Amino acid sequence: MKDERVLLAHGSGGLMSQRLIDEVFKKAWSNEILDNMLDGAVMEVPSGRMAMSTDSFVITPLFFPGGDIGKLAICGTVNDLVACGARPLYLSVAFIIEEGLAMDQLRSIVKSMAETAEEAGIKLITGDTKVVEKGSADRVFINTTGIGFIPEGIDFRPGRIEPGDKIIVTGQVGDHGLAILSQREGLSFTTPALSDCAPLYQLGEIVNKYGNSIKCMRDPTRGGLATVLNEIAGQAQIGVRVQEADIPVSLVVRGACDMLGMDPLYMANEGKMVIFAAADAAEGILADLQSLPQTADAAVIGEATSEPEGMVLITTELGARRILGMLEGEHVPRIC
Amino acid sequence: MKDERVLLAHGSGGLMSQRLIDEVFKKAWSNEILDNMLDGAVMEVPSGRMAMSTDSFVITPLFFPGGDIGKLAICGTVNDLVACGARPLYLSVAFIIEEGLAMDQLRSIVKSMAETAEEAGIKLITGDTKVVEKGSADRVFINTTGIGFIPEGIDFRPGRIEPGDKIIVTGQVGDHGLAILSQREGLSFTTPALSDCAPLYQLGEIVNKYGNSIKCMRDPTRGGLATVLNEIAGQAQIGVRVQEADIPVSLVVRGACDMLGMDPLYMANEGKMVIFAAADAAEGILADLQSLPQTADAAVIGEATSEPEGMVLITTELGARRILGMLEGEHVPRIC
Repeated sequence: MKDERVLLAHGSGGLMSQRLIDEVFKKAWSNEILDNMLDGAVMEVPSGRMAMSTDSFVITPLFFPGGDIGKLAICGTVNDLVACGARPLYLSVAFIIEEGLAMDQLRSIVKSMAETAEEAGIKLITGDTKVVEKGSADRVFINTTGIGFIPEGIDFRPGRIEPGDKIIVTGQVGDHGLAILSQREGLSFTTPALSDCAPLYQLGEIVNKYGNSIKCMRDPTRGGLATVLNEIAGQAQIGVRVQEADIPVSLVVRGACDMLGMDPLYMANEGKMVIFAAADAAEGILADLQSLPQTADAAVIGEATSEPEGMVLITTELGARRILGMLEGEHVPRIC
Repeated sequence: MKDERVLLAHGSGGLMSQRLIDEVFKKAWSNEILDNMLDGAVMEVPSGRMAMSTDSFVITPLFFPGGDIGKLAICGTVNDLVACGARPLYLSVAFIIEEGLAMDQLRSIVKSMAETAEEAGIKLITGDTKVVEKGSADRVFINTTGIGFIPEGIDFRPGRIEPGDKIIVTGQVGDHGLAILSQREGLSFTTPALSDCAPLYQLGEIVNKYGNSIKCMRDPTRGGLATVLNEIAGQAQIGVRVQEADIPVSLVVRGACDMLGMDPLYMANEGKMVIFAAADAAEGILADLQSLPQTADAAVIGEATSEPEGMVLITTELGARRILGMLEGEHVPRIC
């Protein structure tokens, strides 16, 4: 139906809710678990260590170069599971929709979720939809919560990091932040700024091959690379040293950041991982990452040190050494 | 700090986010899994059938007689897991906060979540916080996603329901709906209208004792008892007959609904369960329910029939028989 919109009654739990579920969600996501349509999903799981991660997505704009809120909502949670060393298996999806959202936009988001989940090999197994009055939310917010299983012997708690471990970033940083910012502010560049939004399921191969030689992984989303390095340094009680010249940044991000007075190291990423790895395995990991399309631009950017504990030091491109702190205040609101 | 409020920077992923997590969430919810503060929670699980359920809570007002959005967010997901036959074990929690929310209100919600989770025996193990600009959400929305394990041999899929199975409701219906409505509209009654919001973990004992003599359970939240009966009738391809006179409704709900022209059978509940049980077990289940404080007002309200398939018939208090349909349109928006 043209000009069809989401109405409050679509969130009533009654007949209209059922129609929305049947015609929009089930059509796109059908699988043997979801189709039972119970109060929750029921599935057989193996024993072992399970990872569970949750994220709400409130990004604006809903559609941006390189993705949309639906793709992002799958990638964000998949990547958090991957960062735990887990193989992502199942996702729940919960929508909060502002009354009046165009049904076509919702369908498009739902389709993009289906495609990304398929690519990542994860199943959407249960969901929830709430609709609030016009003005009580901004179009649509999505929560995804995922579970996955961690192979025997994998332990990515930062406490395992030791001085001398190498730090790898799996590609260029800052792309997602710039894509959102440029879309929002109407900036345009010769090379378009595309979000790096991607589900990093391919890292599963690296985890399987190198096991515990990988000490810790984390995806540098809100707060960017600098914030994640600080988090890990604090949790692992180690020092971190990185070389600015070794951190991959695309020309468009570099140029735009210079112009806007922003720092790519604090800009959000949605398809990158920071990996701490034992020194003797780092070269192999790097070579393998570079052979995978998702992580072809991977680079070693620094290493863990014994001191100063909890602190990140960066050697700038001009050779100066300075403290790289956590993000303070707000950088770009509603980036994810 | 007095007059402290949630700021956009609390959702930045940087220093302010970390402070909010440390000072508000971790303080109230500390446990050995949450305290790891990784991108996701990691825990050992047994093999078997797992249930997973998600719900977002957008209720207004945030605080109401008998509960608040925090208590509700725990009860809602716990009860969905119970309805799957599962023992609730772990919950993720995701907040979407409107900039400017009073920090005291957030603390109070977080405290009430901690208390309800403790009562229900479920652990809050991972979370997420987003903050959006003033006007982009209505104070606070909460998503909870829960997982639990289903004991060997339990199967609550509606397909197991047979003609002759008895239908039990575990207490008076309509209390939550009326509590919210009266608070919102400033109505007051001689007996105050209290929400029935409660985590129904005690039903675990009934599930363990009666096993597969219980055919199906579902909690009648949005859309009320009438909608849930219709859902089950449709999914099980059976008929449902209930006697209005046997459905427990408190005097205050009955009186208020008469006055407001509303039907308690469509009003939301947040601490009730509808149970379909084999006829030969129904009496025992009822007696056991009545001996538990949470379900003391349980009653048999009708039974499953072979026809008319997918339809709910009600014998009214005056003896007339009519079709009890699903909720159409919107009854009370933002009830949960």
